[in-house]
Amino acid sequence: MECRKYQFAHRFDQVTGSAIREIFKVIAQPGMISFAGGNPSPDALPDDIVREISSEVLRDKGKQILQYGATEGYPSFLESLSAYVEAALRCRIPAVLPVTGSTQAMDLLCKAMIDPGDVILVENPSFLGNMQCMKLYQASLVPVESDQDGMIISDLEEKIIQYHPKMLYTIPTFQNPSGKTLPEDRRKAIAELANRYRFIVAEDDPYRDLRYEGTPLPAIKSFDTDGWVVFLGSFSKIISPGLRVGYMAGDPDIIRKCTVGKQSTDVHTANLNQAIVDQFLRRNLLPDHIRNICASYGSKMSLMLKKLSEFPDGCRYTHPQGGLFIWAELPQNMNAKELLNLAIEKKVAYVPGTHFCVNGGHENTIRLNFSNSTPEQIESGMSILNEIIKNNL
Amino acid sequence: MECRKYQFAHRFDQVTGSAIREIFKVIAQPGMISFAGGNPSPDALPDDIVREISSEVLRDKGKQILQYGATEGYPSFLESLSAYVEAALRCRIPAVLPVTGSTQAMDLLCKAMIDPGDVILVENPSFLGNMQCMKLYQASLVPVESDQDGMIISDLEEKIIQYHPKMLYTIPTFQNPSGKTLPEDRRKAIAELANRYRFIVAEDDPYRDLRYEGTPLPAIKSFDTDGWVVFLGSFSKIISPGLRVGYMAGDPDIIRKCTVGKQSTDVHTANLNQAIVDQFLRRNLLPDHIRNICASYGSKMSLMLKKLSEFPDGCRYTHPQGGLFIWAELPQNMNAKELLNLAIEKKVAYVPGTHFCVNGGHENTIRLNFSNSTPEQIESGMSILNEIIKNNL
Repeated sequence: MECRKYQFAHRFDQVTGSAIREIFKVIAQPGMISFAGGNPSPDALPDDIVREISSEVLRDKGKQILQYGATEGYPSFLESLSAYVEAALRCRIPAVLPVTGSTQAMDLLCKAMIDPGDVILVENPSFLGNMQCMKLYQASLVPVESDQDGMIISDLEEKIIQYHPKMLYTIPTFQNPSGKTLPEDRRKAIAELANRYRFIVAEDDPYRDLRYEGTPLPAIKSFDTDGWVVFLGSFSKIISPGLRVGYMAGDPDIIRKCTVGKQSTDVHTANLNQAIVDQFLRRNLLPDHIRNICASYGSKMSLMLKKLSEFPDGCRYTHPQGGLFIWAELPQNMNAKELLNLAIEKKVAYVPGTHFCVNGGHENTIRLNFSNSTPEQIESGMSILNEIIKNNL
Repeated sequence: MECRKYQFAHRFDQVTGSAIREIFKVIAQPGMISFAGGNPSPDALPDDIVREISSEVLRDKGKQILQYGATEGYPSFLESLSAYVEAALRCRIPAVLPVTGSTQAMDLLCKAMIDPGDVILVENPSFLGNMQCMKLYQASLVPVESDQDGMIISDLEEKIIQYHPKMLYTIPTFQNPSGKTLPEDRRKAIAELANRYRFIVAEDDPYRDLRYEGTPLPAIKSFDTDGWVVFLGSFSKIISPGLRVGYMAGDPDIIRKCTVGKQSTDVHTANLNQAIVDQFLRRNLLPDHIRNICASYGSKMSLMLKKLSEFPDGCRYTHPQGGLFIWAELPQNMNAKELLNLAIEKKVAYVPGTHFCVNGGHENTIRLNFSNSTPEQIESGMSILNEIIKNNL
């Protein structure tokens, strides 16, 4: 949509975001089985606990919570968060900053680091929201090749040498949208390359706790020797996305620059929301809660994979060990956008994969989310998709 | 502080923010009487009501509140907010966007509108936080002359013709830091100039409800005929700054562009915080609450003005009808930064006015906040300041 009256800033020249938003409007129709989106299941949202905690922190610290807070974070949360992050990443973390969802971490990191024209290397496909963020900072996005395990290190090094990137943006664990997980040796290699060639790694890791099989892997950050890796974390997938609490962790000089940026972005993350997550950490509520979520999501993922195995020859798909998404390739000649119209008529929705691809293309790919549907919806929705694909072979 | 290791983005070249932050660290010392800052009084923070509302909305709508929300806003709040804004501004408002404090409104408006080098006209002095925001978008800030009533319209028009500004940033009511209020005829003139010369007016009006005397004035927005004025509002001064809920209101094309910017900035403002303010509006709690705040702040302001009247000859100060701040000029030769060191030794603090001035200077000015001190603290702190000034004449 074009507006001739106002002259908007040039950073919007490359950003429309309309295609996906149109899909989400359609999906909101009642009765739709949606494998689009990346919402937690309603069962996974701990409303009773949040209500109890909210009441207690407002009783005990109401005046402090309602007053202005420091940009650096709500003091009690800053303390529990630092301990939590160091335990989770098993490495020393010199500075953390609570932020308004990890989306804000990416925005602040770009604000601190990216001038127009700077190159950011990205996986292809990658997370749409943060690609929009990088485009709004007028970065030049260069895709790195992947195989079934994620980014290919030899291609990464070639791109580093060719493009002198300012940053690498990666989702190493249960990647959005591909579901792929980067093995330990590649994680180590990325940290080494960042330290050797001196570029920032934005390690976006919101799904790491949603593991349904296999062994947890060390973060790229844990191999960082010289402060080039910034870890972006989130409580959206393990407590609540609606609370908007995430964090960034890394070198104090980078965190300080992001803090100055945050001052004039939203002053500070709302104290109540920080205080609620603080109590989740201090009461050690996360391990049990995550165990429950993983049991439910894991069986949904298995069911969706089973249904995918019944799809026609020529369909291929990833086999994630966790997270929220499966990535599927339909037979080469199929157009997932056109197919979506047929699917929506039958009340099933997904996101065509092309929207996640840096330079478009890949028209035969789709992203499937399983967390926000019931097993019954997965059973019937996937059968409908299978049928549609068969009828259009 | 300089960092040689990382190459930060050039937007930070003009932004340090360190002077003020050093002051606030000192002010945090126990026993300090602080006329710095702009915090609401603890008495004015409705912790019991927020606690009750929070518990009720999480009981009734817990799953919805903890789930992802729309960037456009929490539906129930969007409805009550639109009605509230139209009633408050007494004009039709075609689009509103709930944001994470009105600071975010300014950030998103700059993101939507400002390219590096664009001129933004500002009052001089002006609000530090938003000046930092504009500088981070690499705008060129050009000050407009003021008299005792605020911006001088003839100077504004001269600057418009000379600089072709993209935007005018103004705080028309009980301005921060000056306490001045722009009269109705000048508000109308600003809207007319914006429509004639086609530039955006960012009308930042967080203090409008904190009126202790005189009659409320129409917003600049109410004189806007063609959609060039964007109104930035906040619940920080009338409910709680710690909740981080504000809004922007204006032309749908502008609000839509800011919404796309917000998608990759923080996805949406936290639902719980929107739901709490929604209930404040729906239960019509604001009128009584504001009446109580105004009674208390009004008597504090009167007391501070009375104490200022006892200051030595050569001291001048504004006579606000509301808000949180009084602006004082000390005798010409005095340096408010040097004086601050003496004041802090005696446990009294303020912010030197030079920090609010676009091009520095005005070394003899100070900003005084009265809302966050008790009458006893105002009595004794102002006596101490008076003494220090007399001793340094």
